[in-house]
Amino acid sequence: MQQHSIHQPRPLFTAPISSLIQLERVSGVPLYRQICQRLREAILSGELAEGVRLPTERALANELGVNRTTVMNAYNQLASEGLVEGHVGRGTLVRRNNLGYDGENFDNVASWLFGLPAGERELLGPDAHLLSELAAMGERRDIISLAAGTPARDLLPAEMLSTIFAEGLLKARQSALGYCPVEGLLSLRRGIAARMRKRGVAVDAQHILVLSGSTQGIGLAARLLLSPGDEVVVEVPTYLGAIQVFRALGARVIGVPTDSDGMRVDLLETILVRHRPRLIYTQPTFQNPTGIVMSRERRRRLLLLAKRYQTPILEDDPYGEMYFEGKEPQPLMAMDHSGQVLYLSTYSKTLAPGLRVAWIAAPEPMIERLSLHKQIFDLNTNAIGQWAVSEVLQQGLLDDHLTKLRRRYQHKRDLMLQAMSTHWPKEVRVSHPQGGFHVWCRLTGDMRARSLLREAAHEQVAFVIGEPFHVDGGGQQQFRLSFAYPEEQHIEEGVRRVGNAMRRLMARRFQNEEPRKLGVEHVPMV
Amino acid sequence: MQQHSIHQPRPLFTAPISSLIQLERVSGVPLYRQICQRLREAILSGELAEGVRLPTERALANELGVNRTTVMNAYNQLASEGLVEGHVGRGTLVRRNNLGYDGENFDNVASWLFGLPAGERELLGPDAHLLSELAAMGERRDIISLAAGTPARDLLPAEMLSTIFAEGLLKARQSALGYCPVEGLLSLRRGIAARMRKRGVAVDAQHILVLSGSTQGIGLAARLLLSPGDEVVVEVPTYLGAIQVFRALGARVIGVPTDSDGMRVDLLETILVRHRPRLIYTQPTFQNPTGIVMSRERRRRLLLLAKRYQTPILEDDPYGEMYFEGKEPQPLMAMDHSGQVLYLSTYSKTLAPGLRVAWIAAPEPMIERLSLHKQIFDLNTNAIGQWAVSEVLQQGLLDDHLTKLRRRYQHKRDLMLQAMSTHWPKEVRVSHPQGGFHVWCRLTGDMRARSLLREAAHEQVAFVIGEPFHVDGGGQQQFRLSFAYPEEQHIEEGVRRVGNAMRRLMARRFQNEEPRKLGVEHVPMV
Repeated sequence: MQQHSIHQPRPLFTAPISSLIQLERVSGVPLYRQICQRLREAILSGELAEGVRLPTERALANELGVNRTTVMNAYNQLASEGLVEGHVGRGTLVRRNNLGYDGENFDNVASWLFGLPAGERELLGPDAHLLSELAAMGERRDIISLAAGTPARDLLPAEMLSTIFAEGLLKARQSALGYCPVEGLLSLRRGIAARMRKRGVAVDAQHILVLSGSTQGIGLAARLLLSPGDEVVVEVPTYLGAIQVFRALGARVIGVPTDSDGMRVDLLETILVRHRPRLIYTQPTFQNPTGIVMSRERRRRLLLLAKRYQTPILEDDPYGEMYFEGKEPQPLMAMDHSGQVLYLSTYSKTLAPGLRVAWIAAPEPMIERLSLHKQIFDLNTNAIGQWAVSEVLQQGLLDDHLTKLRRRYQHKRDLMLQAMSTHWPKEVRVSHPQGGFHVWCRLTGDMRARSLLREAAHEQVAFVIGEPFHVDGGGQQQFRLSFAYPEEQHIEEGVRRVGNAMRRLMARRFQNEEPRKLGVEHVPMV
Repeated sequence: MQQHSIHQPRPLFTAPISSLIQLERVSGVPLYRQICQRLREAILSGELAEGVRLPTERALANELGVNRTTVMNAYNQLASEGLVEGHVGRGTLVRRNNLGYDGENFDNVASWLFGLPAGERELLGPDAHLLSELAAMGERRDIISLAAGTPARDLLPAEMLSTIFAEGLLKARQSALGYCPVEGLLSLRRGIAARMRKRGVAVDAQHILVLSGSTQGIGLAARLLLSPGDEVVVEVPTYLGAIQVFRALGARVIGVPTDSDGMRVDLLETILVRHRPRLIYTQPTFQNPTGIVMSRERRRRLLLLAKRYQTPILEDDPYGEMYFEGKEPQPLMAMDHSGQVLYLSTYSKTLAPGLRVAWIAAPEPMIERLSLHKQIFDLNTNAIGQWAVSEVLQQGLLDDHLTKLRRRYQHKRDLMLQAMSTHWPKEVRVSHPQGGFHVWCRLTGDMRARSLLREAAHEQVAFVIGEPFHVDGGGQQQFRLSFAYPEEQHIEEGVRRVGNAMRRLMARRFQNEEPRKLGVEHVPMV
């Protein structure tokens, strides 16, 4: 075995710099990254010493037979890592004191940290942390949060679960505390399938994969069906968490407008023809954020198009069992007779987010592939939550619990709509959701939701602005208020505070106090 | 809005087929996939009608200016999807009855299923489902499983957790059943950091990200630090779940040999110089599968190299607190003063796998980035498991539990080693682990572990063969026996059965019953 001394200096590089770089055009690694990687290695290893001048972008592009933009991207990346710097009149130089071979100057810093890809803004834009901030916001006592789409604290089934644990944990032992199959506890898969059959969907246990939250399901399906650069269709607006997953995986997200009947399926075919997307994501029932239910005719037509263009549909249905009036709405999947629909739902809204149990229902070959991916990255979903949900189902406790939830959330919705009609200017339009957790609101004139949120912060009340739900750059005048989480006595007060903020904003607008800002912020109706 | 009728036929394609294909060389999508995608679209849409002859591989490669292999890969993929077929003397034709535009013949089949990437064999090779099979195997009563690396059923802390739920769940409510911050429950992060400080690692709550199992941590770190084609260094042998994650993400996995002092760090520098890997994965303490502890001198040198070559180390330490003799071993991270180490551990071995609670400790900028990725794909770890572990730590219950586990697992190890010495041929070599769950065994002569496993199956006993732990093609003579899960009275019996299988195998070898098979199976010692 040949031994290299750690201290043995390596020879400096004298050949043309382009000879360092062998591009692999079929490797799947973008060319700019390959260039960047080779140069980074050469710089860090000392092959390219500090002060060495890199070729101009144009020259290197010519030598390598690539676009000039490709080289520019590579140089910019190296500059952002502190490895090179540009000097007027001198070109791009390898930096002095770069994170070099001997590392003497960087005793307490891991320089590879600087080379990491995808800081949050690059990956997701300014709303990156929104979801986690929303999740945490509910914990602050000093503000009224109308922002979080989470169940009410007093509707979490603590008593029910406490009894289940007390009566069953010692006996269950292994099935609650051990590893369990990737696909999920069989008793739970059976219980889920049985409930789905009652809702009109012909599935059995083998069509169910238990998930650690529906977000995991969106990610697994997207990873299986999309490659970077592939296109996925979503509603505008749509659930912001889904947009984040698709974007993080490098997919291009295409929006289809919605109206009061849900997705504008009449506009969908053009998109299917032009873009050949690989996935359609929809929340057809009590959509987050709009609360809209897609009409039966639209559903029929959506399935027809999906079949014709062989584009799978991911139906996300967290709120389907949270209806307030009339009949229980069926999942889209109930109308699908050709296996186009992957169906996603969760116990985070109907039981407790802390159990982290959700599921996907799909044709068996999909379940097999999804399970494989889940197994690699997650092994299995927590058994204790699965076992608890399975007990709830087997003991027949869910229906009574749901009846209680529906009554309470319907009441909360009524309180919120009543308060809006009492405290808000008549021009502000609001949805009247028949289920789910959210009211979708739209400002008029030139008022922006972002400005309203700033005003509302002074009033100690929070909601979610419309933009992160929009993939088309719209949503500036829209915002979402959720009635599920806040206590009854806080709903009217919260809505009143938002109304105060609206009036202050309107007053300031007429006084023309922020002319420049308003000028910048003005956007046309979408 | 222009409306396309669903039934309107689309014009057939008459221009040269290469004009269908616009390659985007900087898109990050491999060229063969781009070609494949465009042709697939054209075939499915009917633009390329059935029976149309595609250009020869050479001709299309010339027209597009790509490698012939690239076109060949694309055609093979289309053939595997049933969209084209080759005919001697006639070239490659678009297939009759392909999954065409009108779909009349495929009423109940979603044809996009055929176009899915990465079936399990492509993704992971023949051992793909091994981990989940291992997890499920423990449930079968008729066989003695020495395969699964899971805690013993009677050592799962069901009583402890039952008391915790009974006493605290109603009061905890939101923190156990609601959403919680992405980074984890603060009380748990504090508790974890405090325990790590006792083990010599200077971390605080902000350096801890709670995970839904350590597998998630391997995936998150790999996703952040590796791009497809990047290289990662692992020990040979190493934990097979880590290999699966790295391969699934498209990384190239490079093995460093190990000996009784752990990773051969003397061989590492060559790899660091030649390959410039982006990550080093190691289990320095009671490694799975070998049980080996890396020596202090090797640890020192590993950290030095990691710093010099600015290559982060992922230290996976599921068994560090499961020591049987002498002093508690410190994590590698305790010796790291320059932030090279990301540390991963879990409560799956020390408390219960079903809680699905693990963590990663790392410099704050890494925790921030890892949290962002976790948030996108998983929102947060199940709160109920986190809350339960946090209660165990706060009530000071873990140390007594660990003491009990160490005593019991040490006893089980002794039973296993004793049984091996009683029932096995003397030539079979076995490790004497000072901690962890596993004994690593090596056959001699030309006996293969895979043949032994087949024989053992007749004896109703299971273990894990060595190959999936090896990234270098080795491991044919090695296998892993785990002593943690089986009941005491089954350990000797299980080992005895494996011994029976060995003797049967040896007897058959001398009778020369399977000459061809043995010929094929023979491999040199590694």
